Amino acid sequence: MTSVEDSVIQLAQQARKASRVCGGLSTDLKDKVLTDCAEKIEAQVDSLREENAKDLETGKEKGLSSAMLDRLTLSDKTIDSMTSGLREVAALADPVGEAHHSWRRPNGLEISKVQVPIGVIAIIYESRPNVTIDAAALCFKAGNATILRGGSEAFHSNRALAKTFREACTENGVDPNVVQTLETTDRAAVGAMLQLNEYIDVVIPRGGKSLIERVVSESRIPVIKHYDGICHVYVDKDADLEMAAEISFNSKVQRPGVCNAMETLLVHKDIAPEFLTPHLERLNETGVEVRGCEVTMGLFAESGLVAKPATEEDWREEYLDLILSVKIVPDIDAAIDHIENYGSHHTDAIVTEDWKAARKFQREVNSASVMVNASTRFSDGQQYGLGAEIGISTDKLHARGPMGLNDLVTTKYLVSGEGQVRT
Amino acid sequence: MTSVEDSVIQLAQQARKASRVCGGLSTDLKDKVLTDCAEKIEAQVDSLREENAKDLETGKEKGLSSAMLDRLTLSDKTIDSMTSGLREVAALADPVGEAHHSWRRPNGLEISKVQVPIGVIAIIYESRPNVTIDAAALCFKAGNATILRGGSEAFHSNRALAKTFREACTENGVDPNVVQTLETTDRAAVGAMLQLNEYIDVVIPRGGKSLIERVVSESRIPVIKHYDGICHVYVDKDADLEMAAEISFNSKVQRPGVCNAMETLLVHKDIAPEFLTPHLERLNETGVEVRGCEVTMGLFAESGLVAKPATEEDWREEYLDLILSVKIVPDIDAAIDHIENYGSHHTDAIVTEDWKAARKFQREVNSASVMVNASTRFSDGQQYGLGAEIGISTDKLHARGPMGLNDLVTTKYLVSGEGQVRT
Repeated sequence: MTSVEDSVIQLAQQARKASRVCGGLSTDLKDKVLTDCAEKIEAQVDSLREENAKDLETGKEKGLSSAMLDRLTLSDKTIDSMTSGLREVAALADPVGEAHHSWRRPNGLEISKVQVPIGVIAIIYESRPNVTIDAAALCFKAGNATILRGGSEAFHSNRALAKTFREACTENGVDPNVVQTLETTDRAAVGAMLQLNEYIDVVIPRGGKSLIERVVSESRIPVIKHYDGICHVYVDKDADLEMAAEISFNSKVQRPGVCNAMETLLVHKDIAPEFLTPHLERLNETGVEVRGCEVTMGLFAESGLVAKPATEEDWREEYLDLILSVKIVPDIDAAIDHIENYGSHHTDAIVTEDWKAARKFQREVNSASVMVNASTRFSDGQQYGLGAEIGISTDKLHARGPMGLNDLVTTKYLVSGEGQVRT
Repeated sequence: MTSVEDSVIQLAQQARKASRVCGGLSTDLKDKVLTDCAEKIEAQVDSLREENAKDLETGKEKGLSSAMLDRLTLSDKTIDSMTSGLREVAALADPVGEAHHSWRRPNGLEISKVQVPIGVIAIIYESRPNVTIDAAALCFKAGNATILRGGSEAFHSNRALAKTFREACTENGVDPNVVQTLETTDRAAVGAMLQLNEYIDVVIPRGGKSLIERVVSESRIPVIKHYDGICHVYVDKDADLEMAAEISFNSKVQRPGVCNAMETLLVHKDIAPEFLTPHLERLNETGVEVRGCEVTMGLFAESGLVAKPATEEDWREEYLDLILSVKIVPDIDAAIDHIENYGSHHTDAIVTEDWKAARKFQREVNSASVMVNASTRFSDGQQYGLGAEIGISTDKLHARGPMGLNDLVTTKYLVSGEGQVRT
C-alpha cells in the first residue's frame, strides 16, 4: 500500500468515526456551528484572501483563463454568498428524525420509517472554492461527515475554508473530522478514495463530464451525479405564441451557461412560420446563433435572417452558450420522440393551451422536471422552494432533479413491540 | 463487438423501448396481465414441468446437492406461491402516479413530485426459478421493463416461465419485451449487460456474496444490493428475561437459514448468569451450537453445557445455520459498539424495559431495521405490511431494508404555470 492510499484510508476512517457523532447532534448545536462558521469567515476574511492569493498567483503562472481566475477568486460577493448560505442552511428544518410514515401491524408491532443521516459523503468538485463551504454546510446539517476534494487550482483556498469550518466545530465541542479535505493534489488519492466503500457511503462529483465519467467508471461507492442538461422547449400548435416567445427567449437567454438553459427549440409545423420568423429575429438581434433543421433554414432564407444548418450532433449538444438548435416537428409525438432520443432527461417544457397535449407531455416525457407554460430556468432547488441545493441529479435512483437537504438522508425502520415473536 | 455483446445490446434496446410503453399502461391493464399470467401458469403446468425436468436432469448429472435440486424444482407449492404472488401483486395499489407532495410557489407555479417508473431493471439471481415470475410481476406492476438473468442450472425453467408472462402480455396487446431473459448461459453476457448504463437503469443482484461482489465491481449501472445479514439481539440489564429468552430463541431458531435470523447474542454482564444458563441450555437442547466469548465459556464450564470458544472471525460471520455466537458486554455502549463494528447494518434488536436504553439503541444503532422487544425475524416486507418484496436492501441510497413496489419507482417534478419566466 502506498502512503497516499494509507493517508486516504486514515481520513476515511476518521470520517466514519465522526459521522457516528454527527448523526446524533442536536439541531441547535448544528445550527450554532453553521452560524459560528459564518462569523468566522467574516472575521478571517483577510487571511482567507491571503490563501486565495496563492492560488490566484499559481493560476496566473499556469495561464488560467480570466474566466477561470474569476471563478477562483474569493470576491466580496463570493464571501457574502458563503456566509449567507451558512445562515440559510442553519434556518432550514433539520431533516434528521422526520418520520415518513408510521403504522401499526395487526400483531401490535409499531413501525415507523424515519430519516437518518447517510453517513459519510465525499464531494469531488472543480474550481469554485465556495463549494467547500456550501457542500460542507448542507451535508453537516443533514448529520453527515464530509470528505472534500476540490480542484488543485483552489488547493489553498479550499484548505483554509475547511479549516475555518473545523474551527467552528472544535469550539462547539464537535469532532472537526466531520469536515475534512484530501490534503494532496495527487490524482491517485481520488482513485484510492473511490475504492473505500467500507467507509464512504456516497460520492457526489460536481464538474465537467470527464470528471463525472471518471468517477462513475472507477467508483465502488454509489455515485449521485449530474450529466448534461440538454433541455428542450416545445411550442405546440395550440400555444399562446406571445407566451411561447417569452418562455423560449427566457429559457435560452436569461443565463445561457447553466444546465437548465434551453438548448433545442422544437416547434409544431402549423405555427412555425408565424411564430418563428419574429422570434428568431429577436434571438438574432440578441446575438444567439441559430442552427436550424432543413425546414427552419427555408424560413430563414425567406426572411433574410442568419442561421447555420444543424447537424445530427447539434441535437445532442449542451452548448452552454448563446447557441440554439431549432427543429420543426409534425406533431407532439415527434416532439416527445425527439426529446426522448436526444435529450438528457433533465428539464423539458411544453407551451400549449391544450389540456390533452399538456397532460400527454407531462406523462410521456421522461425527464426529472417536466414543465407546462414555464421557463426551463425554474428547474432549481431555490426556485422549487427546497432551499439551498447540493446539485441537480440526472440519476433516477435516490434523488432526481434538484437535490436539497432531504436528499442527503436515508431512512431506517424503527420497530417497537412488547415481546412479539414470529410463528 | 462479439455476437454475445450484440445480442445483449439488442435485448437492452428492446427493453428500453418497451419501458416507454409500460410506463403509460393503466393499472387495470397491468392487473389483467398479472392475473392472466397466473391462469396461464395453472393451465400450462405440465409443459412448465417438462422444461423444469430438463434442468433437474442436467442438475443431477452435474451432481447438484439434494437441497439445490429441491430449490430448483417447480413443486405444487412453488407453482402455488407464484400464482398467488401474481394475484397479490395485482391487488396491490399502483405506485405510479402517486404524488409525494404538491405545492404552490409565490410566483404561482404549481409543483408536484410524482412517482414514475424507473425504466429498465435487470435482475440477476440464482437457482430458484420462481424468482422469474415474482420479480417480473413486481417490476411490471411498477411500470418497468425487466431483463432477467437466472442461474444456468434453471435455464429451461426460467425461459419457460418468462415465455408464459410474455404470452399474457401479447394477448393483452402489451409489448412482450417488458419481460425478457438473457437467452444464453455465457457468463460474458452478464459482463456485457453491466456496461449498458445507457439502456438499463438499475441492477438488482439476488444471491450469494460472490455474485453480488462481482456485479458491484463490474457494473457501470447503479446497483441495489443485499450483502450479509449479521443480526444481533442485545439483552439489556433491564430486560424482561422471559421475553428476552423468547425473542432470542425465535430470532435464532424459527428459521435459521435466512438473512434476518440472529447470528450473535449480546448480553449485559449483570444479568448474564441468570439469563444465559437456562437459555443456553434450551438452545443446546434444540441443537444450536454455541460459540462463546471468554466469560460465556466460564458460565458454560460451570453449568456443564457444551460450547466452543468464539474467535474474532465468529463476530463477522453470517452462519445461516443453527450456530450462535454469544458475547457478554459491560454496558449498552459496548453492545452498540460491537454492532457497529461487526454487524452488517441489516436488523438489530434490543430487549429492555428501560425507556432511555430503548431510545438510545434505536437512535445510535445504524441499521436498516432497529427493533425494541421484537424478534429480528419480523424484518421482512410482508411482516411490515409492504406487500410482496423484491429483496432487502443493505444499501443506504434509494432503498434501505425490505423493498417493495414503492422502491421500484423514481420521481419526477411536474411544474405547471401560465407563462412564468425567470428574472
